[in-house]
Amino acid sequence: MTKPVPTRGRPFASDQDKREKLLDTATLLFSSQGISATTVAAVARQAGVTPAMVHYYFKNRDQLIEAVVDERVSLFIHSIWDPITGDQPPQEMILGIVDRMISTTEKMPWMPALWVREVLSDGGQLRERMVRRVPFGKVALFAESIARSQKAGDINPALEPSLIFVSVIGLTMLPLAMARTLKDKPLLPIMHKVALMDKGVLARHIKSLLLHGLAAPDTADTNE
Amino acid sequence: MTKPVPTRGRPFASDQDKREKLLDTATLLFSSQGISATTVAAVARQAGVTPAMVHYYFKNRDQLIEAVVDERVSLFIHSIWDPITGDQPPQEMILGIVDRMISTTEKMPWMPALWVREVLSDGGQLRERMVRRVPFGKVALFAESIARSQKAGDINPALEPSLIFVSVIGLTMLPLAMARTLKDKPLLPIMHKVALMDKGVLARHIKSLLLHGLAAPDTADTNE
Repeated sequence: MTKPVPTRGRPFASDQDKREKLLDTATLLFSSQGISATTVAAVARQAGVTPAMVHYYFKNRDQLIEAVVDERVSLFIHSIWDPITGDQPPQEMILGIVDRMISTTEKMPWMPALWVREVLSDGGQLRERMVRRVPFGKVALFAESIARSQKAGDINPALEPSLIFVSVIGLTMLPLAMARTLKDKPLLPIMHKVALMDKGVLARHIKSLLLHGLAAPDTADTNE
Repeated sequence: MTKPVPTRGRPFASDQDKREKLLDTATLLFSSQGISATTVAAVARQAGVTPAMVHYYFKNRDQLIEAVVDERVSLFIHSIWDPITGDQPPQEMILGIVDRMISTTEKMPWMPALWVREVLSDGGQLRERMVRRVPFGKVALFAESIARSQKAGDINPALEPSLIFVSVIGLTMLPLAMARTLKDKPLLPIMHKVALMDKGVLARHIKSLLLHGLAAPDTADTNE
């Protein structure tokens, strides 16, 4: 194994590439085995460098985790929230979030498992770090737009505004997490189908459920 | 600490109580800190008995985990699926599952976190054990009932039948998991509201979303 010797001070040409590779390696390990189970030594071994090399780029383990959040996880959060202006009709705004969660996960396939393990789980190590990156202004625009549309009679008034984004996460991130984790060993026929599911089928199902629920279109208003 | 000395062979009167207490203790620790992080010694310490006492009732760690699944987790699965006959209208069947997930979680508040950590997560230790307990006959009745109703025009034909139960889990278990884990430290105002949410509000939101989606009742069939 050749060990590159970084110059002090000014990084040489491929330094940025090496740093990116270490970030990718850490992100994948954090997602697949959990942050607490992933040492700096394991990241180094997986990337084929020495632990000293990881410390050269990220000083310590905490800074490595922060860099994964700032330069990987934050891209996911931004891709979801940045297009929200509060001016779109709420249906369009909500379905857009579903589309972006699915398409961004194609580019960041490690995200749903990382989210389940490190944000949703008790003691997840990214929960507070992620919350510090949430664009509260966008969240407020989202909530106000829903509330306005409910008052105007354009959105089902029986829905609880503060739960709508939670419902979108549950409908979208959960099957994405199941598809990823079950791809290698499907356990139920139904799960196998979810695992192999074309993302277009998943998007159509979620969006139609969000728009109309179980109600058949022709009888939607007399179906309760 | 007084150490009860169990008689060999025939258990004495309070044996069953002691065994139940150990099962409860193990279930809570598995839910709050994860199965792999929970040793037999930790269960014993938390219950105020010796590790030998745990081994007396459960032989080994694997048998303790199996007992938690058989005598605790399985009760949850049964409460969800047992009432499914395939004869109910599918809306009623689906909303019944939501109600039972919420009400059973009131009695088993450790369930959502255990599900996130040990079933949904990569490497979760209960995934295969839970799948072995799934009542496949009931699952088949559920799927057939949905497919029949879609053909008859009673259920939104754009929905993917194999994803409907996944959607119900995402809509229901996710906020229950968030409510539990966020109760002690709410991080976002919106999450605080979820955490403190009355279970009746949660049930109404989920059921209305499942029945009608975002569509306001009067315009439900012209809203796309």
